Amino acid sequence: MPRYMLVVEYDGGPFVGWQRQTNGMSVQQALEEAAERLCGGPTRVHGAGRTDTGVHATGQVAHVEFSRAWPEDTVRDAINAHLRPAPVAVLAARSVPDTFDARHSAVRRHYRYRILNRRPPPALERHAWHVAAPLDAAAMHEAAQHLVGRHDFTTYRASQCQAKSPVRTLETLTVARDGEMVIVTTDARAFLHNQVRAMVGTLVEVGAGRWAVGDVADALEAADRTRCGPVAPALGLTLTGVDYPPDIF
Amino acid sequence: MPRYMLVVEYDGGPFVGWQRQTNGMSVQQALEEAAERLCGGPTRVHGAGRTDTGVHATGQVAHVEFSRAWPEDTVRDAINAHLRPAPVAVLAARSVPDTFDARHSAVRRHYRYRILNRRPPPALERHAWHVAAPLDAAAMHEAAQHLVGRHDFTTYRASQCQAKSPVRTLETLTVARDGEMVIVTTDARAFLHNQVRAMVGTLVEVGAGRWAVGDVADALEAADRTRCGPVAPALGLTLTGVDYPPDIF
Repeated sequence: MPRYMLVVEYDGGPFVGWQRQTNGMSVQQALEEAAERLCGGPTRVHGAGRTDTGVHATGQVAHVEFSRAWPEDTVRDAINAHLRPAPVAVLAARSVPDTFDARHSAVRRHYRYRILNRRPPPALERHAWHVAAPLDAAAMHEAAQHLVGRHDFTTYRASQCQAKSPVRTLETLTVARDGEMVIVTTDARAFLHNQVRAMVGTLVEVGAGRWAVGDVADALEAADRTRCGPVAPALGLTLTGVDYPPDIF
Repeated sequence: MPRYMLVVEYDGGPFVGWQRQTNGMSVQQALEEAAERLCGGPTRVHGAGRTDTGVHATGQVAHVEFSRAWPEDTVRDAINAHLRPAPVAVLAARSVPDTFDARHSAVRRHYRYRILNRRPPPALERHAWHVAAPLDAAAMHEAAQHLVGRHDFTTYRASQCQAKSPVRTLETLTVARDGEMVIVTTDARAFLHNQVRAMVGTLVEVGAGRWAVGDVADALEAADRTRCGPVAPALGLTLTGVDYPPDIF
């Protein structure tokens, strides 16, 4: 059956997360219902990353199969038309071989976390965590470097995480200030459940001066969830991209 | 009476505009009610620019008088506390002499208009006009230069504009592309009602190839409202700043 890769943007605010749930509308369900109105039959949309409730995406990737082939632009435009007014948009649709699996073929996930760091509350910015206390972004970046590499991330993992192993290889974790915004970017082949938000919340403790830079590494080595800092809220997190090996296309 | 200058940020979406109206909540009314809860008596907040329904601000300026003096940070924080959950925030409060008038002392207003120029609809971007047809930003910028300077802007003026003279001096009007976003920035001592949105809507006609670059100048010279292009929607427009002569402080 003709298979398509979809690059998907969404506002996580009104959804229960990527994955279908019984307690509310998920991004996956919104996409599946739109795709079903295009093709007229039951359709499953498989995503690369199961973003949590409230987490956004500018570069989520999914795959879907249809019983017949359409031009790529028709797939994109028709799904977008059927999605309205849900805040989900297909940015691109691409015909791919049936060996392409959005989740299993992925070799890298990229996330960005935005922190609005100023005293007044935000009036315009809905997709950033508001932290009023001044943050030392350089200290946060320095602490972050202790998390880069292959580690047991038990400390920075949700209690409900279902991954078999707590070991992950963090490729990059950078913290940089851009005016009032402190931006954390990170990428890895895969992350544990809540890992990015747990790392960001802990780095904010460093930035605010409540933790020393070395405390982040000590907590990591302890491999103990109770040593983690507060978990940062979902609204600041965005899945910005997913990478695949070029030969899969 | 102690007078304060307020720098104000707001999301124009839920408001009927800056100015008090009988048909809904205005930004001015939200600020006045918050200020009244701080000082305990009737309070008038005077703004530099009367933004329309749906227009945002990151740098609106207003002034307010209280019967007693508070520290500047107390004024900012207390008004912000009373504003919640309205999407309005005081970014800074500054004690000013009573010769300072937010509207009459202003020497320059700065506006920015954002156009999301791509085929898929926006899922995350609520503060930009979505234009699906590819825009030639360089042609828009070239056409815009014909509007810079002192002109009769009758063509680019709302029918309900109450200004006595249609003559204004446009200091700058630039159009630049930043990825999928086309950004128009402009500044002048004062603008006519709807002038920025009328200019942007007309420039989009040039960008989409429906108007020639020279048509914008021809329409200006005609001094005829019916020669204007479509007026761009409010959601893309933001008042980004207001300038004052330094000696007024």
